[in-house]
Amino acid sequence: MRSCRNRRNLIVNLIGDERLDYLLAENLRIIQSPSVFAFSLDAVLLARFVYVPIQKGNMIDLCSGNGVVPLFLSTRTKGTITGVEIQERLYDMAVRSIAYNGLEDRLEMIQGDIKEMPSRLGYGKFDVVTCNPPYFKTPPTSEINENEHLAIARHEILCTLEDAIRVSSALVRAGGKVAFVHRPDRLNDMIELMRKYRLEPKRIKFVHSKEGKEANTMLVEAAKNGQPGLKILPPLVVYDGNNEYTPEVREILYGND
Amino acid sequence: MRSCRNRRNLIVNLIGDERLDYLLAENLRIIQSPSVFAFSLDAVLLARFVYVPIQKGNMIDLCSGNGVVPLFLSTRTKGTITGVEIQERLYDMAVRSIAYNGLEDRLEMIQGDIKEMPSRLGYGKFDVVTCNPPYFKTPPTSEINENEHLAIARHEILCTLEDAIRVSSALVRAGGKVAFVHRPDRLNDMIELMRKYRLEPKRIKFVHSKEGKEANTMLVEAAKNGQPGLKILPPLVVYDGNNEYTPEVREILYGND
Repeated sequence: MRSCRNRRNLIVNLIGDERLDYLLAENLRIIQSPSVFAFSLDAVLLARFVYVPIQKGNMIDLCSGNGVVPLFLSTRTKGTITGVEIQERLYDMAVRSIAYNGLEDRLEMIQGDIKEMPSRLGYGKFDVVTCNPPYFKTPPTSEINENEHLAIARHEILCTLEDAIRVSSALVRAGGKVAFVHRPDRLNDMIELMRKYRLEPKRIKFVHSKEGKEANTMLVEAAKNGQPGLKILPPLVVYDGNNEYTPEVREILYGND
Repeated sequence: MRSCRNRRNLIVNLIGDERLDYLLAENLRIIQSPSVFAFSLDAVLLARFVYVPIQKGNMIDLCSGNGVVPLFLSTRTKGTITGVEIQERLYDMAVRSIAYNGLEDRLEMIQGDIKEMPSRLGYGKFDVVTCNPPYFKTPPTSEINENEHLAIARHEILCTLEDAIRVSSALVRAGGKVAFVHRPDRLNDMIELMRKYRLEPKRIKFVHSKEGKEANTMLVEAAKNGQPGLKILPPLVVYDGNNEYTPEVREILYGND
């Protein structure tokens, strides 16, 4: 175990191959581990995409991993943010990152199953719910990633898309927002399931790795009990013809400096 | 009434303010009328977007207007194409355009209500169904376009989206394709209704008037009894920064010449 000090001279411990990475465009750092969990561009895009109340509010992030979405959201709102992560190892990384950044007064992590959160935290108590769920349907056991941490984060082993949508709908208040990031091949399921649980999709943004390629990521925001009326936002293209990040993605990742 | 002769020296009659316009990229002409019906870019995009069997096959276009989609499709397939239009005035324009282009052997127009077509033409008899339906929910009578021809073509007066999807599903064979063009604000309804009638959306393309703008048109292709698995195709941008057609749209409208 190694330790680092933050600006307030507090010590954070790093375990195994953990690193204390920068959240690039923000003045924050986050504990990551290549063998356990490292956040993806998808989480960053979700935290940028979702509506957030600026001055106050009650947000919750499901399937929170190492807490990347709550950490990013903390730069966009003065409200409180709860992260829920079932894996103790990832939960523990998130708790230490929150402490390192001195955000314990506004950010809280809960270790547990998202399916238990409505009865534990209350129905309709949140203004905003975010979720970057496992993307892949559970394959035969032999094909699942042998690394259990990565397998649970990537496959619908402990949490299906329907679980995540049903729980999001239960946690959000009427009129509140629910935002998911997922693969476009699940758009039909996403829309059908959201409507099943009274979440009306209102804004969708597709992300294409390059111009002229099919979308490989989608961001969907719905309103609880919302009226129909969907906007398809301008697409985001990640790489230019030289395989460099496009200006829009550079600004998201590195800021305007 | 005026008359024009086609290449085979056949006479076509033009009524009132009708014009004999070019289908630009194709060696075809079409009867249009600004006060009754003139086709839009949407119809052209639909006819280009949909899968078609090249050598043979049985296609049907619902809400066919002046027959623009069947005429365009005739350049992509050697199969037969039926167009269905409820308004006699538009049906008549389509029949005369088909005759002018000498396509009577492969293109047929039916005047009637699409809702009667499955019992009239048979269930599951078509390989491909296309539809450019009325886009707007029926408003209070006072707000409907006073021109009855345009009102019926634009508003869900005689045909709702659910009617069009239900009928498409009844007409197409298992595994066959159904393609719609519509406004993106109806995407949620489109997906939910298609799945209700066992049409699985497989390919969606969004059309943006300009880069950085929300999509204003969508093209959706579904497979009858299809497996889940959706692709979001690269978006189409219609105008460049100088309000000129982009090269991709110019090629669609004017061809490669």
